[in-house]
Amino acid sequence: MKVVSTSKSHGGVQGVYSHASEVCACDMTFAVFVPPQAKDRPLPVLWYLSGLTCTHANVMDKGEYRRLASELGLVIVCPDTSPRGPDVPDEMDNWQFGCGAGFYLDATEQPYAKNYRMYSYITEELPALLATNFPVDMSRQGIFGHSMGGHGALTIVLKNPERYRSCSAFAPIVQPSTAGWSRPAFEKYLGSDEKAWRAYDTTLLIEDGKRFPEFLVDQGSADGFLQDGLRPWLLEEACEKGGIDLTLRMQEGYDHSYSFISTFMDDHLRWHAARLG
Amino acid sequence: MKVVSTSKSHGGVQGVYSHASEVCACDMTFAVFVPPQAKDRPLPVLWYLSGLTCTHANVMDKGEYRRLASELGLVIVCPDTSPRGPDVPDEMDNWQFGCGAGFYLDATEQPYAKNYRMYSYITEELPALLATNFPVDMSRQGIFGHSMGGHGALTIVLKNPERYRSCSAFAPIVQPSTAGWSRPAFEKYLGSDEKAWRAYDTTLLIEDGKRFPEFLVDQGSADGFLQDGLRPWLLEEACEKGGIDLTLRMQEGYDHSYSFISTFMDDHLRWHAARLG
Repeated sequence: MKVVSTSKSHGGVQGVYSHASEVCACDMTFAVFVPPQAKDRPLPVLWYLSGLTCTHANVMDKGEYRRLASELGLVIVCPDTSPRGPDVPDEMDNWQFGCGAGFYLDATEQPYAKNYRMYSYITEELPALLATNFPVDMSRQGIFGHSMGGHGALTIVLKNPERYRSCSAFAPIVQPSTAGWSRPAFEKYLGSDEKAWRAYDTTLLIEDGKRFPEFLVDQGSADGFLQDGLRPWLLEEACEKGGIDLTLRMQEGYDHSYSFISTFMDDHLRWHAARLG
Repeated sequence: MKVVSTSKSHGGVQGVYSHASEVCACDMTFAVFVPPQAKDRPLPVLWYLSGLTCTHANVMDKGEYRRLASELGLVIVCPDTSPRGPDVPDEMDNWQFGCGAGFYLDATEQPYAKNYRMYSYITEELPALLATNFPVDMSRQGIFGHSMGGHGALTIVLKNPERYRSCSAFAPIVQPSTAGWSRPAFEKYLGSDEKAWRAYDTTLLIEDGKRFPEFLVDQGSADGFLQDGLRPWLLEEACEKGGIDLTLRMQEGYDHSYSFISTFMDDHLRWHAARLG
C-alpha cells in the first residue's frame, strides 16, 4: 500500500492510498479518514460507495463528512467506483459503463471479467487491506452510498447481512436491471441471461428472500433521475413485502448533487454511529 | 446578471452567477449562498476571497460553509480571483501572476490596467450588483479569505474600515511586497516604484496609519508556505505597533489546503456572525 497524500482535517487525518489490486488486476486508489479517537482504540468503519463518474475524491472533497466523523469517532472509507488504467477495457464516451461505472458487481463476460470485480474488491480485498493497515474494528462495519453507490451498499448488505450493522443510501438505484442507465451495463458485464442480474439488484434480491433489518434512504424531490433511474417507490414496495424496516425520506427541492448529499450527511453519520456502537 | 446554476443545500440555495463586468472589462463569475432566513428579512453578507489558482468554485466545493451559514443566517459571497477570458493578458505557465492571481489590487501598468482591477471589482462593482439582486443588508458586511484572499480581506478592510464590521483570514499573505511569490506580480501590476505597492500590503498599510479594530487569523504549523510566503509574525508585529487587536492562532499540524480551511470554517463564521448582528 502506498500513501498518495495525507492532510490533517478536523483533528484527524484524511489520507489517499493506492495499492496493486489482485482482484481488479490494476492499481486501485482509495481514501480513508481516521478521526482523532484512533489514538486510543480501534474504531468502527463506515464505507461510502460513490456514484457514476466518481472516483474516491468526489465525496472526500464535497461530502462534508469529516467534522461529524471526528466527533463520532468513525473511520470513513471511500473506494473508487471501478478499476482503471491503460490495460482496463473501457468505453471512453460512455459514462454509464466501464471506468467510473463498475456497479459494484463481479463481471462474468469478456473482456470485462478480468478487471471489473468491484463486488469482491469492496467485500473482500479492500476490507483485508484496511484491517491490516488502519486502526479499525472490523466487527463494527456500516455502509452507505449515493446513486450507483447506494445500489452497491444495499445489494452488498442484503448478501452479507452478518457483516454489516448498518446501511443507508442517498438517492440509490434500487432496480438497476430495469433502469435505462444501468440495464445495458448489466448486459455487458453479466451477459444476456437476466437471471444472473438478480444477484445485483436490490428489489430482486429482496424478492429472492435476502434480508437486512433496516435501511435509511434520502431522496431529493428535484432529482432529475428520480422518475426513470431511481424510482424509490420500487424499494418501498419490496421492503413492505419483505418486512424490511425502510425509512424513506423525500427531501423537497433537493437535486442529485453533493449539495443534497452534504446536507443530509450528518443525519446518515448519526444513523450509522447509533448502530455501530 | 445570468444564473449559471442553482442547487438547494442545507435549506438554502447555492447559486453561481455571471455578468459582464465593466470594471474588469470581461465576463466575471461568482458564487452566492443564500440561507433560508432570506425569506423573512435581508441578511448580513460575508465575503470570502480565495487564494492563488482558485476560482469561485474551490471554496464552494470544499469550504464546508453552508451548514453553519444556514444556521447563522449569513449570505456567503465567493468571487473569482482575477479577470479571465481570451482577451485578458495572462502568463499561462505562471500560477503566481495573471489569471487566478489578481491579488485584489487595481493594476496601473500596461497591458494589465484594463482588466486587472480586482480591488474596485470587490469593493465597488460586485457589492452594487449584490445589493440589487440578492436579499442582503449591505450595512452588515464582513470579509474573510485564504492566503492571497486573506491578503485581500485584510487590505480591503484597512482601507475601508467603515464599510466592514468584521475581518478574518486563513493563512494570509501579510507582506506581499517582500514575499517571493507576490513581489514579481506587484512589480508587473503596479510598476517598479515600490511606494505604490504600500496601498496593497497589510503590514505597510498599518505602518502608514490604516486601522481596523480586530482580526482573527488561523495559520497551520505544517503549511509549506509559512516561512517564506506567509510569515504571520510580521502581522503580529504590525498589529502590536498599531494597537490592532489580533487573535493569531497557530494550528498544530495543519497544512495550506481546504482540509485546514474547512476545519476552522465554523469558528470563522461564528466570529463574523457575532459582529454582524
